[in-house]
Amino acid sequence: MSDSLQIFSEFLGTAVLVLLGDGVVAGVNLKKSKAEGAGWIAVTVGWGMGLAMAIYISGFMGPAHLNPAVTLAFAAMGDFSAGLVVPFIIAQILGGIVGAALVWLAYMPLWSETDDKDGILGSFATAPAVRNLTANTVTEIIGTFILVMGLLSLGENSISDGFNPLLVGLLVLSIGLSLGGPTGYAINPARDLGPRIAHQILPIANKGTSDWSYSWVPIVGPIVGGLVAAGVFSLIPF
Amino acid sequence: MSDSLQIFSEFLGTAVLVLLGDGVVAGVNLKKSKAEGAGWIAVTVGWGMGLAMAIYISGFMGPAHLNPAVTLAFAAMGDFSAGLVVPFIIAQILGGIVGAALVWLAYMPLWSETDDKDGILGSFATAPAVRNLTANTVTEIIGTFILVMGLLSLGENSISDGFNPLLVGLLVLSIGLSLGGPTGYAINPARDLGPRIAHQILPIANKGTSDWSYSWVPIVGPIVGGLVAAGVFSLIPF
Amino acid sequence: MSDSLQIFSEFLGTAVLVLLGDGVVAGVNLKKSKAEGAGWIAVTVGWGMGLAMAIYISGFMGPAHLNPAVTLAFAAMGDFSAGLVVPFIIAQILGGIVGAALVWLAYMPLWSETDDKDGILGSFATAPAVRNLTANTVTEIIGTFILVMGLLSLGENSISDGFNPLLVGLLVLSIGLSLGGPTGYAINPARDLGPRIAHQILPIANKGTSDWSYSWVPIVGPIVGGLVAAGVFSLIPF
Amino acid sequence: MSDSLQIFSEFLGTAVLVLLGDGVVAGVNLKKSKAEGAGWIAVTVGWGMGLAMAIYISGFMGPAHLNPAVTLAFAAMGDFSAGLVVPFIIAQILGGIVGAALVWLAYMPLWSETDDKDGILGSFATAPAVRNLTANTVTEIIGTFILVMGLLSLGENSISDGFNPLLVGLLVLSIGLSLGGPTGYAINPARDLGPRIAHQILPIANKGTSDWSYSWVPIVGPIVGGLVAAGVFSLIPF
Repeated sequence: MSDSLQIFSEFLGTAVLVLLGDGVVAGVNLKKSKAEGAGWIAVTVGWGMGLAMAIYISGFMGPAHLNPAVTLAFAAMGDFSAGLVVPFIIAQILGGIVGAALVWLAYMPLWSETDDKDGILGSFATAPAVRNLTANTVTEIIGTFILVMGLLSLGENSISDGFNPLLVGLLVLSIGLSLGGPTGYAINPARDLGPRIAHQILPIANKGTSDWSYSWVPIVGPIVGGLVAAGVFSLIPF
Repeated sequence: MSDSLQIFSEFLGTAVLVLLGDGVVAGVNLKKSKAEGAGWIAVTVGWGMGLAMAIYISGFMGPAHLNPAVTLAFAAMGDFSAGLVVPFIIAQILGGIVGAALVWLAYMPLWSETDDKDGILGSFATAPAVRNLTANTVTEIIGTFILVMGLLSLGENSISDGFNPLLVGLLVLSIGLSLGGPTGYAINPARDLGPRIAHQILPIANKGTSDWSYSWVPIVGPIVGGLVAAGVFSLIPF
Repeated sequence: MSDSLQIFSEFLGTAVLVLLGDGVVAGVNLKKSKAEGAGWIAVTVGWGMGLAMAIYISGFMGPAHLNPAVTLAFAAMGDFSAGLVVPFIIAQILGGIVGAALVWLAYMPLWSETDDKDGILGSFATAPAVRNLTANTVTEIIGTFILVMGLLSLGENSISDGFNPLLVGLLVLSIGLSLGGPTGYAINPARDLGPRIAHQILPIANKGTSDWSYSWVPIVGPIVGGLVAAGVFSLIPF
Repeated sequence: MSDSLQIFSEFLGTAVLVLLGDGVVAGVNLKKSKAEGAGWIAVTVGWGMGLAMAIYISGFMGPAHLNPAVTLAFAAMGDFSAGLVVPFIIAQILGGIVGAALVWLAYMPLWSETDDKDGILGSFATAPAVRNLTANTVTEIIGTFILVMGLLSLGENSISDGFNPLLVGLLVLSIGLSLGGPTGYAINPARDLGPRIAHQILPIANKGTSDWSYSWVPIVGPIVGGLVAAGVFSLIPF
């Protein structure tokens, strides 16, 4: 596949991921939504299946990283062309912005019904349950370590291509349920930064601050976690 | 397969889809039901698995569109015989009516226990969380865009026939969780119009209005969304 | 496989099905249980996955009907040896009794914590949400019709052996979510009669009546529903 | 694969299992966690998917028992080298300790927000709903019997390698939903003893006793249940 098609695939896939992922948070958080109060199981299943579907929708045109931490980890292992790293990451962040804008559009009549500014920001970017930037970064490192270890390990099992995206979605369901409690499991810089930019620039009714002081945590944590996983995996003598 | 068998397959599959899909809404909405209050995760899993099973039950006799927006999108792409479009859509709407009548029958002793007219209508047709017909149409366009993009993309992945209906069910689970909050995700004109007709004509205890003023939204939105997806997908140079 | 191994397989599989299926109801209904109040999604996922696992555990030794309504429907279609019908049904009912006894044993310290006699009976046999024996029978007919139509249709799709039991479990998850509200979806005479016998004869703390006046509904309804499905399926000219 | 790689695989896999499994309990139990109060369906899906992912992450380097009861049952059947039993069990327990320590780390800022000592212990080791050590042991025997019967039976079905770990995860989801109510379904001595040791030695804020008087139940019950399953399975003349 051509480089430009692969880059487009990252843009499209990340947009779909964020539309479906942030969409379920909006559905659960916004007042009068039919999904209001559906809870953490709805959020985590929504993100997991959203990722699976984003991979099906983009993966026939490219590798479907949809995540700068994954792109960097695979590049560090030499499994991915270094020249595509920057274009991929830009496409992923742009996809995150567009996906978040589509969430804004899809839920348009509901923003003005909600005066919970945290719930509105949470429909875009992540926020910690208890603010402690060092500890929050550690949580994101651990979550992304499992994500990248899982992705690399799935590649060593005999899994048919058509089944693999569903398993990746279930991997993220698992991480969300088990490690999402403290920080909302960004585990993906584009999934957090793109929607945070959208939250900043879009005229969303009732929105508050975009909380930029936290924004580096879901960038640094996932990148470090992914690179550590790549390093550990490389050391296994199998 | 013969044309008439394929048309029968659309009728049967849509009837099963609406029986299982509207059935879970009735189970959650109706007082004294064992599923009363089971919430949005139950509704969305019920619709998702209901679609998967409807495809297994009809798909060995035909293409199992079960949705006029899908039939029109595939026809627009030239992937489906134009002469079957109208018979398919008629069969789908008739299936929707019959499926809804079976929901009425299966839940017969419970309608009179419930005085929530919205809950009863919601067990047949969709209604918006916040009424804004333009915005509601946009939400249905976005949801059906993802549905048809997903169906077309699944066809480009290497997925075994027997696994595909389950993935389509999970696609609709994902759309329901992530994009269902504002309008209840009709994303299928036959799934909404057929049961709305049934709600109008059946002597359901405690029923109220069938809300015909909203009825065009879940027809127009899905058709537009499906056609846009077909157009976008056609433009991808893979 | 020998006839006696197949009959044993029905006994073992139905025992596992009822242990896991009634087990989740006990878990949700009994006071102090860690699953207390986990709701209808837990009950339906528990029964669905319980059936899938019961089929994996018994299906390598026989056809894994685990349900007299399925055995009779398949026999009526000529797909199953008539001479095995009665031994299969006896094995299924005995399996249901043993499975229910194991539920009693597994939850032993919790029965005396609960004074809800309906909740205790519901951990063994089904009961209607609203008592109307004719309507309740119709609901069981519709549910079992979908079950048997689903089983027959899955056989016409190209599904690998190892994946099929999971799909059957998801079929029962779907029926439970969508059609379980009015009667608790017996859709299987052995699943209801066996545990009801166990409820009658075991010295369960705080138990009330075994409600024998209802007991024919989850026998007659499923048998009729299964036979109707077999008839309808036979008429499809594919 | 070399013995040392297989032993490392048991360590790594059990660490991941406990990180993800205990992680979901911490997420549900700890105050201010985004998963707080997500309930039993979240806990059981979290453990089930956590096990599936732990098997994918370790199973390409070894047999992925991740459970001394499984190792002993398979050794008793002659399916596993006796010389590896003790190293495997030590690796599994060490993995359980490390996995629990990572849960402590991942949820670091939340322990001090919670004054529920049972909820904190429950994020590490199991505890009975109603304390009755004999009955609690019986419950663990029954749960582990189903686990090992399921594992052995899955091996007799035609299941592709890549699909098997997911089914094992769904088996444990089923056991959790259906048999987890009375004791929290340890069904794995390493999953309980390892984290209990971690709870004892780590300086966890607000922790109480590690309840060592109960600690033998989730060791003895699972070992007995696994051996009984191995014996019963061996007797089946298929």
